[in-house]
Amino acid sequence: MSDKDQQVSCQINIQPNESAKKPAEISKDGSFKRQVNRFTTPFGEKADEWPVEANRYRLIWSAACPWAHRSVIVRKVLGLDQVISLGAVSPMRPQIGRVDWAFSLDAEEKDPVLGIQYVSDIYKKTDPNYDGRPTVPVMVDVEKQQAVNNDYFTLTNSFETVWAPFHKKNAPDLYPEHLRKEIDALSETIFHDVNNGVYKCGFAASQEAYEEAYDQLFARLDELEERLSTKRFLFGDYITDTDVRFYTTLVRFDIAYYNAFNTNKKLIREYPNLWGYARDLYQTPGFGETTDFDAIKRHYHLSITINPDKSDTPILPKGPELSVWESSHDRERLSKTNEKYLLRAE
Amino acid sequence: MSDKDQQVSCQINIQPNESAKKPAEISKDGSFKRQVNRFTTPFGEKADEWPVEANRYRLIWSAACPWAHRSVIVRKVLGLDQVISLGAVSPMRPQIGRVDWAFSLDAEEKDPVLGIQYVSDIYKKTDPNYDGRPTVPVMVDVEKQQAVNNDYFTLTNSFETVWAPFHKKNAPDLYPEHLRKEIDALSETIFHDVNNGVYKCGFAASQEAYEEAYDQLFARLDELEERLSTKRFLFGDYITDTDVRFYTTLVRFDIAYYNAFNTNKKLIREYPNLWGYARDLYQTPGFGETTDFDAIKRHYHLSITINPDKSDTPILPKGPELSVWESSHDRERLSKTNEKYLLRAE
Repeated sequence: MSDKDQQVSCQINIQPNESAKKPAEISKDGSFKRQVNRFTTPFGEKADEWPVEANRYRLIWSAACPWAHRSVIVRKVLGLDQVISLGAVSPMRPQIGRVDWAFSLDAEEKDPVLGIQYVSDIYKKTDPNYDGRPTVPVMVDVEKQQAVNNDYFTLTNSFETVWAPFHKKNAPDLYPEHLRKEIDALSETIFHDVNNGVYKCGFAASQEAYEEAYDQLFARLDELEERLSTKRFLFGDYITDTDVRFYTTLVRFDIAYYNAFNTNKKLIREYPNLWGYARDLYQTPGFGETTDFDAIKRHYHLSITINPDKSDTPILPKGPELSVWESSHDRERLSKTNEKYLLRAE
Repeated sequence: MSDKDQQVSCQINIQPNESAKKPAEISKDGSFKRQVNRFTTPFGEKADEWPVEANRYRLIWSAACPWAHRSVIVRKVLGLDQVISLGAVSPMRPQIGRVDWAFSLDAEEKDPVLGIQYVSDIYKKTDPNYDGRPTVPVMVDVEKQQAVNNDYFTLTNSFETVWAPFHKKNAPDLYPEHLRKEIDALSETIFHDVNNGVYKCGFAASQEAYEEAYDQLFARLDELEERLSTKRFLFGDYITDTDVRFYTTLVRFDIAYYNAFNTNKKLIREYPNLWGYARDLYQTPGFGETTDFDAIKRHYHLSITINPDKSDTPILPKGPELSVWESSHDRERLSKTNEKYLLRAE
């Protein structure tokens, strides 16, 4: 991925520069430019330093974060949960005067394996000069106590390829070789217009930048709605890595982005195909079970980085209804086989 | 109406008391208690002082305000627009250090008839000791330059009864005598749970107060959805005053309250009967033509009283799509007659 705004992280740095009083990731025209990832060497490249090895790495995520959610879904679907441990930070940003993620869900508010209180702790241990936002997902070498990879854009592809020796039996192939070029291309499009598109809407600091992102987002959703009218998943009968990436935005859309990011042209549940597709994925092992609606709602509606101006008594919206995610979707009709869960076996 | 929170006005006084740092209309438990109306003598009661007379009074409204919108719909439907003039304030609150409404839409930012800049000007001329919020709707005696009535709860009923000599030919009867008891009762229920219910959600200062109002609101909407499954309008084949009152909240729901007031269980366009009913009314003369979506959106999403914490660069949500309001509703099937617009003629 060449484009800089494809690089890392979960949340915008909305803390203003003291001098400019503008958030660091807001450009002059008011549009949102995501910061560049720091630890981007893919697994397999420096195999001596960071070997693909069972029980050596710990994946740190926040259940709120769509970028981290990707890696957690793929880890689960492929059975890598048996060899890569998982640490979770709170969906609520700590109020400590800087943008960070805190292990406040754990006993003594520390990650039980790494012994750290904040995600920034591991960033600083790895690179004392790091001055960006500490972000999730991040793969940590537990032995060396170092951040190894925080590049959510390639991390799932590593899980799908060089981590294959540790896949569970009959694990699906989420990144089939003959489709990789197309998968990468569609993932890139979806990244710009949808995954990051909602953030461009939500963090725009000018009406023009917001409306441009909004138009781009909904034009792309219309196109994907059409694509999914004849295909059960984005590439046909089987789930691929791109579906995982699209899902993590779709599942947050109605409960978070529609309100918190002003992406309010239509709800996802108002698009017949996107809504059936989203539920189809939600009801597939690895997807719904890693989807934490409560964490998502609290993060987007109450967390200080999303709502810096929230009043003293923030209200968590009670809606929308969540039971609809369990309703039948009838997407099986679009696939050649009629299996309930379609994950291609290797 | 005996209940105090049924009395007056369009917007909460969210300006904190200097001492308590709590808005004046927020009670200890965090719930919203609307202020009491000031000028409540109904037309007809002091007929010497305030006679029912053509071209004597001016109705001041804001197109954003549901309480004012009632009176403007009824004025139009009954043809009183020929004898009562209309002045409009901006949907955006003026930033002048107090809650007010401004005539900033007019040339020189003054009402061309009353010559005043703010709604508070007429309140003060009428009662120098008035210390509540200046509210709309308010009927002003142009001759005396005095506020005569700001009691939106009875104003439409005055239009429908004592103002009858000035109704247009074949004006509908929105307040038929044999139904008044039932109309008043249902209007009161809808006021508490729906009209003011959305405000109770939006201005709640505690999670508990918010959730209580939310549950009450959606329970009532479910009940009204059921009622409207067999009736074209709330009382059958003809539009009554209660339909006007319900409409002014429904038409603001999806574009404003759902986001700005956290009433996000479901959109009105997701209720088959409420949605058909709302469009049926919207497409009836006097309703859609007095509905200003742009003013409503700007008020609820950007105005300082609703969003006291809005950042320096507020974004106006571009959605939702408005063209859906013109779509066919097929509600005629529920009425005995098959007229397109059903307004009972006297």
